[in-house]
Amino acid sequence: MREKIVRELESIVGAEWVVSAEEAVEGYLYDETPIPVRPEASSDVIVVKPGSAEEVSRILVLANKHGVPVFPRGGGTGLAGACIPTVSGIILSLERMNKIIVDVDNLMAEAEAGATLRDLIDAADKAGLSFPLHPGDEGAQIGGLIACNAGGARAIKTGVMRSCIKGLELVLPTGEIIRLGGKVLKNNVGYDLMHLVIGSEGTLGIITRAWIRLQPRSAASATIVIPFERREDALKIVPEIFRRGIIPLAVEYVERVLVERVGSNLGLKWPCTSAEYQLIVILSENSEDALLGALESLLELCNSSGALEPVVAETRKEQDEILRIRSEIYSILKPDMVDILDVSVPPASLIDLIRTVNELEIRYRVYMPVYGHAGDGNLHIHLMKWDGWTKEKYDELRDAIYAKAIELGGTITGEHGIGFIRRKYLERVLDRRTIELMRAIKRIFDPNNIINPDKVFP
Amino acid sequence: MREKIVRELESIVGAEWVVSAEEAVEGYLYDETPIPVRPEASSDVIVVKPGSAEEVSRILVLANKHGVPVFPRGGGTGLAGACIPTVSGIILSLERMNKIIVDVDNLMAEAEAGATLRDLIDAADKAGLSFPLHPGDEGAQIGGLIACNAGGARAIKTGVMRSCIKGLELVLPTGEIIRLGGKVLKNNVGYDLMHLVIGSEGTLGIITRAWIRLQPRSAASATIVIPFERREDALKIVPEIFRRGIIPLAVEYVERVLVERVGSNLGLKWPCTSAEYQLIVILSENSEDALLGALESLLELCNSSGALEPVVAETRKEQDEILRIRSEIYSILKPDMVDILDVSVPPASLIDLIRTVNELEIRYRVYMPVYGHAGDGNLHIHLMKWDGWTKEKYDELRDAIYAKAIELGGTITGEHGIGFIRRKYLERVLDRRTIELMRAIKRIFDPNNIINPDKVFP
Repeated sequence: MREKIVRELESIVGAEWVVSAEEAVEGYLYDETPIPVRPEASSDVIVVKPGSAEEVSRILVLANKHGVPVFPRGGGTGLAGACIPTVSGIILSLERMNKIIVDVDNLMAEAEAGATLRDLIDAADKAGLSFPLHPGDEGAQIGGLIACNAGGARAIKTGVMRSCIKGLELVLPTGEIIRLGGKVLKNNVGYDLMHLVIGSEGTLGIITRAWIRLQPRSAASATIVIPFERREDALKIVPEIFRRGIIPLAVEYVERVLVERVGSNLGLKWPCTSAEYQLIVILSENSEDALLGALESLLELCNSSGALEPVVAETRKEQDEILRIRSEIYSILKPDMVDILDVSVPPASLIDLIRTVNELEIRYRVYMPVYGHAGDGNLHIHLMKWDGWTKEKYDELRDAIYAKAIELGGTITGEHGIGFIRRKYLERVLDRRTIELMRAIKRIFDPNNIINPDKVFP
Repeated sequence: MREKIVRELESIVGAEWVVSAEEAVEGYLYDETPIPVRPEASSDVIVVKPGSAEEVSRILVLANKHGVPVFPRGGGTGLAGACIPTVSGIILSLERMNKIIVDVDNLMAEAEAGATLRDLIDAADKAGLSFPLHPGDEGAQIGGLIACNAGGARAIKTGVMRSCIKGLELVLPTGEIIRLGGKVLKNNVGYDLMHLVIGSEGTLGIITRAWIRLQPRSAASATIVIPFERREDALKIVPEIFRRGIIPLAVEYVERVLVERVGSNLGLKWPCTSAEYQLIVILSENSEDALLGALESLLELCNSSGALEPVVAETRKEQDEILRIRSEIYSILKPDMVDILDVSVPPASLIDLIRTVNELEIRYRVYMPVYGHAGDGNLHIHLMKWDGWTKEKYDELRDAIYAKAIELGGTITGEHGIGFIRRKYLERVLDRRTIELMRAIKRIFDPNNIINPDKVFP
């Protein structure tokens, strides 16, 4: 049977784009999900690399015919195991479909799903425009970023992936190629299936192409690190920044001990040594005047809000170093990490959530480094390895944090998604009827449960 | 049967909130859809005014039991007949559920569905914040604005309704009350049913409450009217504005003959008399410095792009007068109007669409005033009454315009929706399989086809 499917796949995409040798598929089995929580992948898989939506369609028709699961795969940078082939099946990698065309007059990129975030940033830049979000690892692919509605630090001003997607070409699990939206900015024709597919984590269809709204390049930016002696003060200032009419690109919360450690690992010096609790604020404006206005207003606010002396980075190099340290926190923690949580609460409740994390640290005598997107209430809490700890202990800790997030009106995942590893928690956030509706939608799109059959739902 | 249902409804909401006398229900039968195209309402209806989501739920359970259609009704400002009770049934008016609470720390309004746009603008203002969109008539209610994903002129910078909604309380057609999202800004838990419900025009559930993200008040604004002798020049400048890094609140295209006529009807003088084709650009920035920077950059661009002398309005009164004239175009045209079209195309193709409209005007010897949201490619074309014209002639004209919009990669409705009057055109824009998916979703949510049973689908 396996051999028969390999032959049929080869007849669709050409023999050079079907990979089935065990050592050759190894690089396609996992993503960035921390090893202690990620599921075991089946190595009885065939990797197929279609070159067009038509080929994707034929692969899905084939998979339906034989009842073989299909696991769509982008850059493999996900953190919830959504692309891991937990059972035998076909891994559908979009890597060959990586073209991007920029339509300057419409400020629109038309990108194939396998183009990377880096490709998109570069293509926008070459056209004199910008893709202002930065939703994670630059090796992530457009299809995956959309399927997972990726967020990242720069979601404050420009929103998450959902906010810049205007159209999708989608191959339905049953093989039909449909187009939702396009280069239009306003579109109210029937139900918005495009928004339903965004964030559905590869379970409702294979995204093969997207129309993405770009922005003008910002004229001026500055990165400000603001130190506070009290954590409360650091977090309390955040809504005040917005109320003053400043809308930063990013407002990140970090703790000095962690960023200094990451910095020294990278051979870089963290620029702000004066207190434990720090905010990183990135301002990005359309003119130098506007930047100076916003910066002045921000520094004034710091002055009256218990902050110590802020560090203002204006050169590209200084700003990049701060961001690099911030971005590498995950990689540095990863080897000793059991799980990275992604809870999201109303921004003003972030302080209550962090207080709970600290109480748990004391009660359980563990170290749980946190950092997060303070501007949008999305906090990454890390469960670290600890001598003599068991899976049950970590589950207890995770449960306590999820319970607190939900109590605060929040949710268990703000940007990483449910994927495989959070399926059992879905029922904590959603009521029975809502999950039923979702499952029924999955059945409509994918009657044979062919694509990503074991993801999202418990 | 009718009497029995009236009694049961009275037992749910109280006798004073059930209206069934023919003269008393009259004000609930229609919306703002132009009379020549709107469907006939049944006057065999009962109007019920619930005071809570629980009461809405009980009404829907009752309606399912008896198989009686329910027509949800907001402010009745729609333009596609989505709330018109085309058959005998229950009109469910949300008007009593009109409370708004503003959570200043989270920049979030929690609004009941029956609060009006005016209520929301005022509540935000009282809290020192703003609701920056202006999606139509201020008598529109929040539930309707969300159900129809309203847009309006200020969607360039701040997006349409979809972009500011973070949570919904929804009563499903079968009576269950569910909550989707809330005060969280990032939320990736399962399929995004909230975004599916936004824009579903009252066919997937009754929205009873919404969480709406507010913005800081803008510090400074200016309204600039830019005249051009050639229409091409007026429209060509639009993407150039964005590319210079200016993101206005609104970029509207108007023609002098029309705005002057509307002005004189209102006893106001249109401030710009020097050429036929004009753009209204509203700049809104977070500081005076930023405003001056953007204004300077805009005027520089005008200078090099074939514009005549722009009129810059900076006082509140001047700006309001321009906007009032712009807003009243529809009311002034309405008595002589057959239909208002709402086509939407990629912004750079707007010029091609308007050219086609002009050719049609000449070929058919009719007058079709246009104005539109040039920044997002959404054009309102008015079919006006004409001596001796028949429905067939208007259909021919409408068909030609829709065909052109679709040929340009656009769509037949950018913001007004399908409702009742565009159902027969749905198949022009969407393929068979996409419509099947939508119908299947409707059946999942509303197995007995109880709410708005004859809307959206052909």
